[in-house]
Amino acid sequence: MSQMRKDVFTGSWVIMAETSTVRPSDFHFRRFVRETVFCPFCEGNEAATPPEVFAIRNTGSFPDRPGWRVRVVSNSKPFLRIEGELGRRAEGLHDLMNGVGAHEIIVETPRHDRSLHELEVPEISEVIRAYAARIADLEGDKRMRYVLIFKNHGEGAGAHTISHSISQLMALAVTPRSLKTELMVARDYFSMKERCIYCDVLQQELKGQRLIDENADFAAFAPFASRFPFEMAIFPKSHSSAFSRITPGQIENLARILRAVLQKLDHTLGGPPYNLSLRDRPFLRPREGYWKTIEDDFHWHLQVLPQIVHVTGFEWASWFFYNPVPPEIAARLLSSSS
Amino acid sequence: MSQMRKDVFTGSWVIMAETSTVRPSDFHFRRFVRETVFCPFCEGNEAATPPEVFAIRNTGSFPDRPGWRVRVVSNSKPFLRIEGELGRRAEGLHDLMNGVGAHEIIVETPRHDRSLHELEVPEISEVIRAYAARIADLEGDKRMRYVLIFKNHGEGAGAHTISHSISQLMALAVTPRSLKTELMVARDYFSMKERCIYCDVLQQELKGQRLIDENADFAAFAPFASRFPFEMAIFPKSHSSAFSRITPGQIENLARILRAVLQKLDHTLGGPPYNLSLRDRPFLRPREGYWKTIEDDFHWHLQVLPQIVHVTGFEWASWFFYNPVPPEIAARLLSSSS
Repeated sequence: MSQMRKDVFTGSWVIMAETSTVRPSDFHFRRFVRETVFCPFCEGNEAATPPEVFAIRNTGSFPDRPGWRVRVVSNSKPFLRIEGELGRRAEGLHDLMNGVGAHEIIVETPRHDRSLHELEVPEISEVIRAYAARIADLEGDKRMRYVLIFKNHGEGAGAHTISHSISQLMALAVTPRSLKTELMVARDYFSMKERCIYCDVLQQELKGQRLIDENADFAAFAPFASRFPFEMAIFPKSHSSAFSRITPGQIENLARILRAVLQKLDHTLGGPPYNLSLRDRPFLRPREGYWKTIEDDFHWHLQVLPQIVHVTGFEWASWFFYNPVPPEIAARLLSSSS
Repeated sequence: MSQMRKDVFTGSWVIMAETSTVRPSDFHFRRFVRETVFCPFCEGNEAATPPEVFAIRNTGSFPDRPGWRVRVVSNSKPFLRIEGELGRRAEGLHDLMNGVGAHEIIVETPRHDRSLHELEVPEISEVIRAYAARIADLEGDKRMRYVLIFKNHGEGAGAHTISHSISQLMALAVTPRSLKTELMVARDYFSMKERCIYCDVLQQELKGQRLIDENADFAAFAPFASRFPFEMAIFPKSHSSAFSRITPGQIENLARILRAVLQKLDHTLGGPPYNLSLRDRPFLRPREGYWKTIEDDFHWHLQVLPQIVHVTGFEWASWFFYNPVPPEIAARLLSSSS
């Protein structure tokens, strides 16, 4: 019999299939394909993008010239623009504001022929440094409340025109509703227990059959109520609400575990599309009702969501997911892959 | 400049593109294709499905034989099964229960060569009657708290193996989290205003540029904070929390407007995939904290979600959508199509 499982962080239920064996070949999805048309993100094509807002460069190289290892530019077709006032206003019963925010591209490598999981640990460490540096910088913009960092790998995950390895950053003037739900659940839990819900779940997962990988600073596991087959979460072992406070030692261990689990995913399924996202706390702004306790309540983490099945009307109607692969099976397959 | 718009029913924000012209040919999606392999849902193939749980039949015809006009059967590969106890229990910090519920297929027509929007008004009226009858029946099962009815049209909407026109029904032992959010917002609004938030928004939309169609009992409009391009909502004009109390006259007018807007969508975009879903109130059970006021607070409605763009890591990370087609433009294009 199938199971209904509740996500302890959001209160959402997932229907988990009854199955004891899963063959990766049961899933039909478009494997990652590397396009070789002109690419604005390759080294030497710096003039094809907006000017860089941040870069990690070789000594002696110059902005918007070759010699970078990670490079951050504004999106040339941004969803949001950094200039202007928010202009919060009403239209009858409705609320709206101007599309003010940042929409940046984090180019993870100058090389077109490498995906994130194919980079070396020091290279991935520099991508993570770039994430933290951009968040710390944008926190100074008092209009902004939240920074979202995400990655679309492969056409099935939304990267239908770009195969160069990039992440995207959106700075938003509002906190996403989904994150507010998580913050409220985490606050209620801390009020009751005087402990962080993420720390508690991590302790349980470290001992269980859903663990995929761990090192001194991080653990990766298949969440109990995974919405997507082969979904993975990466939690820092020591409590921290703000990703941008990550230490150099933690950066290296995060690069190590992220590389390992993305390689496991790639090997197990054979080039699946996936989305990666950072779930960080909002910036501490006085109008946010939860800011006083958020440092205790919340615990930043990464999510890896493989996109190998269709989302249907069932999910869209309910925000309630059906997952054909129980996380215990996913973790076993992923753990045993090199 | 783009806009950020807030969905007044959920509190979620949507980024609405800045654009004044949209060509339907800008969107690339797989058009609906009718498969012609053996179909268990065609008249004459009744033995290929589980026994019927409900049908609207010609006089003198027999169950599980030809002569039906709408036929409801259990899904042969159900997500949930009707037999058994819920068995709510813990696994450490996690909550789970057995996959108990109903998963039914509502076969909308005996003919393989017609989609829902190609049926006549009396035929669509019978589909709606079947929805209401199944909900009323399942309300008697005290284990169940919510019935979800949805439809996947076309491969891009999740109907990748079925082209016969069907809807699906899931009876759930929990209320979906997304609906609880809507119920809480609606309750807070009613507490403040002593009016239904859906009634109030409907009055505003009836006068505005997002209206697509209306008749004596229903109005269809493009929601202010549409998450999907060409998204549509259909609201009953008179307040009602429970879909199953729909009257015969309302059923005919709902069939009429549903047929009209699905035809407009089909003609405007040329066979797009879409999801249709009913947002009904939960059953009134004593453990649900909101049951005392839900008849006032909530207002059932239908959603039509065209699936013509990719959902990316941005949406999955944030439950925050980017919509390239402002609803004012969608409504203009849809209204002007026949």
